[in-house]
This record gives sequence, structure tokens and C-alpha cells, in this order.
Amino acid sequence: MNVGIVGGGQLGLMLASAALPWGIRCRVLDPTIGCPASQVAEHIVGEYDDYAALAEFVAGLDRVTYEFENVPVATARWLGDRLPVDPASVALETAQDRLHEKAFFQALGADVPEFRSIATEAEFRAGMDEIGLPAVLKTRRFGYDGKGQCVIRTLKEAGPAWERLGGRPLILEQYIPFDREVSAIATRDHAGDIAHYPLVENVHVEGILRESRTADLGDQISARARAVVERAMDRFGYVGVLAIEFFVVGDRLIVNEMAPRVHNSGHWTIEAAATSQFANHMRAIVGWPVGSTQVYCSAGMLNCLGSMPDAGSVAKIPGATLHDYHKQPRAGRKVGHVAVTAGTDAERDERMAAVRRVLGA
Amino acid sequence: MNVGIVGGGQLGLMLASAALPWGIRCRVLDPTIGCPASQVAEHIVGEYDDYAALAEFVAGLDRVTYEFENVPVATARWLGDRLPVDPASVALETAQDRLHEKAFFQALGADVPEFRSIATEAEFRAGMDEIGLPAVLKTRRFGYDGKGQCVIRTLKEAGPAWERLGGRPLILEQYIPFDREVSAIATRDHAGDIAHYPLVENVHVEGILRESRTADLGDQISARARAVVERAMDRFGYVGVLAIEFFVVGDRLIVNEMAPRVHNSGHWTIEAAATSQFANHMRAIVGWPVGSTQVYCSAGMLNCLGSMPDAGSVAKIPGATLHDYHKQPRAGRKVGHVAVTAGTDAERDERMAAVRRVLGA
Repeated sequence: MNVGIVGGGQLGLMLASAALPWGIRCRVLDPTIGCPASQVAEHIVGEYDDYAALAEFVAGLDRVTYEFENVPVATARWLGDRLPVDPASVALETAQDRLHEKAFFQALGADVPEFRSIATEAEFRAGMDEIGLPAVLKTRRFGYDGKGQCVIRTLKEAGPAWERLGGRPLILEQYIPFDREVSAIATRDHAGDIAHYPLVENVHVEGILRESRTADLGDQISARARAVVERAMDRFGYVGVLAIEFFVVGDRLIVNEMAPRVHNSGHWTIEAAATSQFANHMRAIVGWPVGSTQVYCSAGMLNCLGSMPDAGSVAKIPGATLHDYHKQPRAGRKVGHVAVTAGTDAERDERMAAVRRVLGA
Repeated sequence: MNVGIVGGGQLGLMLASAALPWGIRCRVLDPTIGCPASQVAEHIVGEYDDYAALAEFVAGLDRVTYEFENVPVATARWLGDRLPVDPASVALETAQDRLHEKAFFQALGADVPEFRSIATEAEFRAGMDEIGLPAVLKTRRFGYDGKGQCVIRTLKEAGPAWERLGGRPLILEQYIPFDREVSAIATRDHAGDIAHYPLVENVHVEGILRESRTADLGDQISARARAVVERAMDRFGYVGVLAIEFFVVGDRLIVNEMAPRVHNSGHWTIEAAATSQFANHMRAIVGWPVGSTQVYCSAGMLNCLGSMPDAGSVAKIPGATLHDYHKQPRAGRKVGHVAVTAGTDAERDERMAAVRRVLGA
């Protein structure tokens, strides 16, 4: 079985690494020579809208998937005309536009922050009146890791926000002063069976994920998160891994956003789950049943941002596994992560604290 | 850090796969084009006594290790003159000769089967008189997976055994009608710290390992096995993973043989231990401390012999992970394995039974 992955970053690296032992051969399309996934997969060097590269990419493939949601829709459709592509492009298109995404979850009956579509400054002003402050102004498209958004706490901040983002299609959202941020990750296979990982609690700093850990948020919150994931997956006819990020505010579970792909907050599944999110995604893509998401230990993950820590220092921390993506260091860039496993949550938290000290975070 | 691995089979593949996330780059030396490890490591194609290939192999490396014990001693010494090579060649030389190996463990004070060095047919006859039957006649060198040995149950079988093996340096050993076969696997680092995995129970058929599973043999047997491993490692000044196979007979724990490398009976550590035997070996080689060998679940492993099972059928078994070495199928050849994890031993055994059915074993 030969599977193509659009994108050859760290997610492509971990997808291809999980596929290899199962006898699934991967080929990635990525414009960057020496991209992370090229270490373990065949690599076609090309832009995502370079149709000569795309033709070379698809030759001999059985299936295609992707590792990031900003694949051009025209490319996804071109691929879909030639090969089975999962997850379905409708999920991709929904995730690419924050307005469509919010409307999608609202239509599903999920709790979402109040939001308005914003095209003009007048709409922006009216939106702030209706939603109230603080609010968040975001570009509808191409935002990630906190890019393309401004929090507006007072009317004084409205002008500079408009200056920065105005002119593009925008969305204004109610600012959610959350108690906790969690993500729900699940895999759906071609038969429609869904396997959920336990909920993960996340810590973001300046919009970038810093840490994730398995968390017990109680049966009720868990069940509600699973229900939203299942309704979204069924609506999309989804195949593969889907991640949904939620805010927890008191009893409320509010959808923040979704990622139609394997997710940074699920990296710990490599070490801690019977089947990792990467293995499960590839299994679903090739038409096999989803694997057990049983988790045998307490687990967590810390991102390495900007530069890699000294590997030998990480090796001194029990239960810590380094993942070096072999990327060029650059301020704020995700260049690796450290996964942590332990017998108990307390032990896991101690080990994560030790990793944090090594990361200087 | 650049590490060379002599041998690019499945053990090399799993070593290089474990090294990659830690930022350790691997290069393998192997005569076979497309050898398993070449999927994830740079590959120098060459015989193990081809000094031009060896020179190409060592260029730019920081350390060298090996994935099989029949590395020519001259090659190990040539490498050792140029680079740090671990485990030490004395361990290699001891493991390469069954007579030296038995004498080594006897000198350590470990329980070993009665044995005699055999050069002539007269010595063979005298040996059978002294040891009694049944006994096992083995070549001293180049035996593996049951090759190069004959069990002699009655004197009638002595003639054919001599005909098959006579003329080479041999060893005659007492035949041990064991209750259980177990292996002890541990890693020792440059500082001399040793991390033990739980004992593993093994099932061999015709000298080839079929199945391994984590086993509780009681504190006393475990402690004695660990003591033998530690004495052997300390004596060798060992760095890396060492496996010792034992027979359990009533209260006795009898050394069968050792492998100065990662071991087939430890493959389940990839899925089930905080640090796999492969990661631990590479960590020790590069001078880092050994990692936690904490095991969070019940685990086991079944070898795929001769040909690979249908991957989709393995995927239907909860907690089963396929490892396809991408080797050409050939009768009796180890071409892959299936690792199994579960919450309890009973669940693990059920899952292993399901794998056995898929393997047709």
C-alpha cells in the first residue's frame, strides 16, 4: 500500500514513521528540501499548487492524506479526482475558514462563542457593540499558532486591530475567559467506527501550544466532547484523525476550533496509547479498522520552541522521550517535543516540571 | 551525533528508528541492497570484512555499535582502533564461542549445564559417558536460531550427529528438560548504571523464537537473573543492551546463552516500556544515562516466520502492532513480528491467541 501525504513537516514525519512498520510506504509532497518527513519517506519537492510536482506525487499512489489544513482547495480537488483522499475535502474547506467552522459547529448544536462575520469597519464596530468586549478579531483564513488575530480588551485597541487585520475577510468572536483548554482527538474509519483518546488538557502561550497532558475532566464533560466529535465526524463522513479544541468555562464546553488532521496535543499517544494517533490515522486512511486507544499510563508532552534542548539532559529525566524534528532553529518555531510517561499523574507532573527546567521554559 | 551500526537487518532498523527522534543519525554497514535498516538510515553496501567499505562506513562517525554477534573479530578490532565501539569486543568474542561463553558464566558463579569441549570423536564418546544422555552437540561458533546443533537422545543418534557436525570445534552440553525458558534483558550505560526490563518468557519451536511475553517468575528468580546479568555486564565493562537466556528447572535458573545486543525477545519494549531496548541501547552507546524500563501494561510478541500475515487482519486485533521488516519472504525467515499490549495478562493472552490465528501458527 502506497500512501501520499501532502506536507512533509513533523506531522508527516510521525505519520510516515507510524506507517512504516505496518508495511505502508509513504511519499510526501513538500516544497522544502530536507523536510522532516524526508528522513523516513520518499519526498517529492514541490509547491502545493505545482501541478507537475503533483502529477509526480500521485504516480503509483493508492491513497492520499494531508498533514496540514491549509492545503489549497483546488489541489485537494485535483487529488480527489484522481485518488481516494481522506479526510474529505469538505472538512478541509470548513477548517480553512473560521466563519464556516463556527457556523458548522453551531448547526451541529454545539456550544460556540458568539461570533459575527466582519467585512467592513462599520460591521466591526457594530459587532463589538453586540458581542461586547473583550472580543477577538481574527482573519477567517490562514490563521494558525495565534497568527492573524487580535484580542480587543478596550475600545482603544479596536483601531490598531482594524489597522492590522482590516481589508481581509474577518470574524469577530466573543473572548472566552476559560478555566481550562482541552482537546478531543478521535479517529473514524471507513466503516464509521470511532475510537476516542482521553481528553487532553492544553496550555497555550501567545497562541502557541506549550504543553498537553492527559486529564480527567469528569464523565459528563468527556461524554459531551465525544458527542460533538462524533456528530462532526458523521456529518463530514470523516475518515482519519480529527481534533477539536474546546474551552471549559464552569459547566460549559465551548468549541474553539478543529483540526482535520493529527494534532500537536496528541503526540503523547506515540508513547502512551495502544495505538498512536499517527498509526490510527494511517490505518483509517488505508481502510483498516481503528485501533485501540487504550492508555496504559499517565502522559504528557512539551513543545520545544525555537531551538532543541540538550538531548543528553532530556535523557536524564525518567520517562522522557525526545522528538527532534530535524528542523532549522528559528524563534518560536516548533522544532521538537518531549513526551513524558509515568505511572501516576503526580509522577508525570514532576517529570514534566523537570523537562520544563531543561527547556528553560 | 553520528552512530554506525554494523548490520542493517531488523535490529538495525529498530535501533535506527529509535535513535532518529533523539537526534542521533545512524549509518549501517550491510552487504544487502535494500536491507531493512536502509529505510531509515544511511546505508553503506559492503561485506563485513571489506576494508574499503569499512573505511567509507566510519568516515564522519562518532561511535559504532553492532546488531549481530557474528561480526568478524578482526573487523571489531579494526573499528575499535578508530572509534569508540560498544559493547566491548570481549563480549562479542565470548558470545561467538559457546565454549568460552559457558566457561565465562561458570567462572561468574552462575548455574550452567554440564559441558565438555569436543575436538575428536573419542572426546565426544567420553563426553556422553560423563554427562549422560540426552545431551546436545553444538558447533562452538556461528550457531543461531537452532542451527549447528543436534540433540542426542540415545546412543543410536550419536553417529549421525557426529557425521553432521564432526571436524569442527564442538561443545557437548547436558540436555536441560526445562520447565520454562526466560530471558533477562538489561542496559548498562557508560557510568555503570544498569536498567533491567522485567523477565520475559519465551517459546521456541525448532530452535527459533516464536513468542515472548512479560512474565512474573517471582522475586527470587528475578533477583537471581538480575544478579547474573549485572555480574556479566560489570565483568565485560559492558555498554549497551545485553540479553541472557535462561532455563528454569524447578528452583534452578540455568544460563543457556547470551546475546551482546538488542534481542528478539525484547521487541515488545517498543510498545510497552517507558524506554524501549532499542532507545536504551542507543542512549548508552552515545554516553547518555539508561532510560526508565518501567512497563505500564501487559505485553507480548509473536514472530512472523517465512511470510507476513495480512496487515488488515492484524489491524482488527485490539492492541496489536505489526512490524514488517520489509524482507523477502523465505521459509523460516524472521520477516516481521506482532507486538501486543493489554491491560491485563489475561487480555494479553487472548490477543496473542488472536494473532496466532492470523499467523496460522
